[in-house]
Amino acid sequence: MQYKQHLVQVIHFLHAQGWAPATSSNYSFRETDEANFYISESGIDKGEFTVENFLLVNSEGLPIEDARKPLAETALHCSIYKLFPEAHCILHTHTILNTILSQHFLSQKALILANYEILKGLDGIKTHEVIVEIPIFDNTQDIPTLAKEMQRYATTQALRAFLIAGHGMYTWGTTIAEAKRHVEVVEFLLECEYRKLLLAK
Amino acid sequence: MQYKQHLVQVIHFLHAQGWAPATSSNYSFRETDEANFYISESGIDKGEFTVENFLLVNSEGLPIEDARKPLAETALHCSIYKLFPEAHCILHTHTILNTILSQHFLSQKALILANYEILKGLDGIKTHEVIVEIPIFDNTQDIPTLAKEMQRYATTQALRAFLIAGHGMYTWGTTIAEAKRHVEVVEFLLECEYRKLLLAK
Amino acid sequence: MQYKQHLVQVIHFLHAQGWAPATSSNYSFRETDEANFYISESGIDKGEFTVENFLLVNSEGLPIEDARKPLAETALHCSIYKLFPEAHCILHTHTILNTILSQHFLSQKALILANYEILKGLDGIKTHEVIVEIPIFDNTQDIPTLAKEMQRYATTQALRAFLIAGHGMYTWGTTIAEAKRHVEVVEFLLECEYRKLLLAK
Amino acid sequence: MQYKQHLVQVIHFLHAQGWAPATSSNYSFRETDEANFYISESGIDKGEFTVENFLLVNSEGLPIEDARKPLAETALHCSIYKLFPEAHCILHTHTILNTILSQHFLSQKALILANYEILKGLDGIKTHEVIVEIPIFDNTQDIPTLAKEMQRYATTQALRAFLIAGHGMYTWGTTIAEAKRHVEVVEFLLECEYRKLLLAK
Repeated sequence: MQYKQHLVQVIHFLHAQGWAPATSSNYSFRETDEANFYISESGIDKGEFTVENFLLVNSEGLPIEDARKPLAETALHCSIYKLFPEAHCILHTHTILNTILSQHFLSQKALILANYEILKGLDGIKTHEVIVEIPIFDNTQDIPTLAKEMQRYATTQALRAFLIAGHGMYTWGTTIAEAKRHVEVVEFLLECEYRKLLLAK
Repeated sequence: MQYKQHLVQVIHFLHAQGWAPATSSNYSFRETDEANFYISESGIDKGEFTVENFLLVNSEGLPIEDARKPLAETALHCSIYKLFPEAHCILHTHTILNTILSQHFLSQKALILANYEILKGLDGIKTHEVIVEIPIFDNTQDIPTLAKEMQRYATTQALRAFLIAGHGMYTWGTTIAEAKRHVEVVEFLLECEYRKLLLAK
Repeated sequence: MQYKQHLVQVIHFLHAQGWAPATSSNYSFRETDEANFYISESGIDKGEFTVENFLLVNSEGLPIEDARKPLAETALHCSIYKLFPEAHCILHTHTILNTILSQHFLSQKALILANYEILKGLDGIKTHEVIVEIPIFDNTQDIPTLAKEMQRYATTQALRAFLIAGHGMYTWGTTIAEAKRHVEVVEFLLECEYRKLLLAK
Repeated sequence: MQYKQHLVQVIHFLHAQGWAPATSSNYSFRETDEANFYISESGIDKGEFTVENFLLVNSEGLPIEDARKPLAETALHCSIYKLFPEAHCILHTHTILNTILSQHFLSQKALILANYEILKGLDGIKTHEVIVEIPIFDNTQDIPTLAKEMQRYATTQALRAFLIAGHGMYTWGTTIAEAKRHVEVVEFLLECEYRKLLLAK
């Protein structure tokens, strides 16, 4: 399947889970040896998203032969592609659980996940006997600030995904399928963690 | 797409979310420069709603060349269109969360929403650093009383949606797509608020 | 639409909600002036239920020109049709909420529902200012005992639906559509009640 | 319907429930009088699983005329088929509820289910007046150890399903339909148990 069609299919899947409500969320991919990448247009209901709603931008996020203005978060996608040259797809979802748990754990700056079999669905993890940290950043309108925070974090620790408080999650992968798998793993574990918090009360 | 078909599609989406059970909920739209509007017929299972189930009424809610009796809530739609001349679509949903949180917060007369990124999905909101108030009115069989309560509130504060205790939500937009987005934003936040209430206990 | 096809469609809807898991639940309807009725065969996955899975039985529950043995609960359907001559469809669902709340409220012998707008979706109710009681009976393998309990209750109070502890709900209507609406109303309110119980803790 | 197609249909159903996220879960079946069995290939998104994704292996789990390497859990399927000669289908799901409740009840080594009507959906159970124990084993990368634990348990008590802490559930049946029914019964009851734990707090 072509990249564009594959990512549209994934976007419809994410939307059907309720993970991209009300025109929220954004997505991008780049082809094998390209610095340019395709990013989703802003303001589109993700249940109606089509291949026409991708915009080609260069590695600085400037549109290539396209009159449409890329969304503000394009700068964050640029930073992720620069930090992780092997990444070819970035998915930003906006879910009830990533919204409230990013707020709930903001004071400890991270969500800590341990001893779950499904963690093996994250790139590079071979055993459930592992502790995975998903950092949580403050929400801000200032995308370059967010990008810097993410870069600073990545210089000290493995980074596979991050949360923005009250806003959502970013994750990525070497393929569209891997990025999708990362979303599913983290969303599954957010629901596990939330339900365990209620049990522990 | 034609207005009628577009709104039918939105009604089927809302029904599929479980937001219009048991023939509850109602919907209307008006075309660009019309005072008349189309409103959903009463008693229809929203999973089976078709373009034939719309009824044309005038700005006072009286049917135009149609023998069917419009539902009692038509008067509320008339009031909303008069108060908000830019509105072209009104959606009234009936969900588990809007039922119970409208009861839960009734004593404080409003649901207060703050610091959520998704609030930017509401018309006119440009930052998550905002406080949005969704008023809650007492449930009553007396629709003119409800309409007056809504008008009184709107004269003092911005009004984008309101809840009726134990009954549901009304929201609207300049387009069908915007009204749908408003439903999604508020329902998403109702679930966030409910889940945070449980965490806070 | 023909009765059989209509009820199959409703069964698929109920199954899709997760209200008929693991071959549980049963359903029947009778045509306008018939004492005989059609009842669902036992042991069928409701996601695969077809018109072939109905069995014609007489008012005593004995099969008419059919070698298949009707399910044990057929006796309960017979009793309901005798008690409520206007009923033409009976739906028995088996849901997570009706299972656990029928256990939770068993000591008080009933689920009490009040002040919900959606109660107007129950036959004969014209205002939300009403108290509706859904009785809860002990679960038993002995269907005639259950039928007697139901009959005794109905002689003293209005009965539109009942719960069997840890087992499920029975409701009915003058039409298939009305019976379906009754299921939706009660399931909606079971979820409301459960969520309010958690808030109240 | 052919076995392979039937199991693919069941896998898609389980995936649609959210019970097989992120390429997790595995499945197998054997035809009536065969020691060889077909098992699902590793690493496949279960929403896209097709008949091509089955691998034929012998009773020791070695692939028959197939270059693909079977997944590590194949050894567990071999052990189950040896212990239960009447079993013809094994389903391993990976759900939010089986993940967290297997962790929650790990210290008591089992999930105890009693007095639920739906228990009659488990093979050999004829009344809700029954206590069913689903053992919980520690999660381990060492599949032979897990297989031995399961065998030891089965020599002392009836075994219809087991949980692995933080990992998922295995169950089986004499047919694909029965194995599916077992998954549905246990998942339904896990949700009942979880919700009752919250009520009891």
